[in-house]
Amino acid sequence: MTGFVLNERLEADTHLVSELEVCSLRLMDDARWPWLILVPRLSNIAEWHDLSKGQRMMVDDEVARTGKALQALSNCEKLNIANIGNMVRQMHIHVIARNEGDDNWPGPVWGFGQREPYDIDSARKFIETFRAEFS
Amino acid sequence: MTGFVLNERLEADTHLVSELEVCSLRLMDDARWPWLILVPRLSNIAEWHDLSKGQRMMVDDEVARTGKALQALSNCEKLNIANIGNMVRQMHIHVIARNEGDDNWPGPVWGFGQREPYDIDSARKFIETFRAEFS
Repeated sequence: MTGFVLNERLEADTHLVSELEVCSLRLMDDARWPWLILVPRLSNIAEWHDLSKGQRMMVDDEVARTGKALQALSNCEKLNIANIGNMVRQMHIHVIARNEGDDNWPGPVWGFGQREPYDIDSARKFIETFRAEFS
Repeated sequence: MTGFVLNERLEADTHLVSELEVCSLRLMDDARWPWLILVPRLSNIAEWHDLSKGQRMMVDDEVARTGKALQALSNCEKLNIANIGNMVRQMHIHVIARNEGDDNWPGPVWGFGQREPYDIDSARKFIETFRAEFS
């Protein structure tokens, strides 16, 4: 896992939640939806099939745990889980809680409108609540 | 795997490519992007964490193989891999080849414009070419 440097844009747009075994788990700084991303601390990985089978299993476990906790926390109607990467190639996986009537429902969140950053207390509260659910 | 019935809308919007070990692999009938979906033949599964770890590993292998073949075939710039399910709850995973300048790049494909069905010869050709690459 040497040589990993978090992409500048991902760093600027997120708050750290937790360093998991493989991924950096981060809160997207957009209060419109409960939205986490997982960034595997691996270099030069853009596509899912660039990961070895063992790496995929480890990342996948962290994705599933994140999704389960986010659904429990948010009581959402549906999770949206995705690796897109059209803007930022560094592998990152979105885990987003969606509900009927939220911004752009049932359309996707990516590219919709303008990001609405959390105030710092709200971000901290979300992160603490999520950590408690996740552990 | 008893009790699985493919969702009507997924059936209407896709062409069968192959029945894999766990998933039904299908071509989205939209010629704007090379776009496949994988539907695990399992009942009452909506979320990724609803799958057992063993099921996730099997589905994940089929997703990774599909992505690798689709990238090789299309020479695309980036794959978009996602479980959204806001419209259709039955678990299905999108694997889409994206390129700079394609429709709505770098935005997402879901909910963008109107579907453009393949003519039957083009769909058949895509499916044959994909099967050859996949095998």
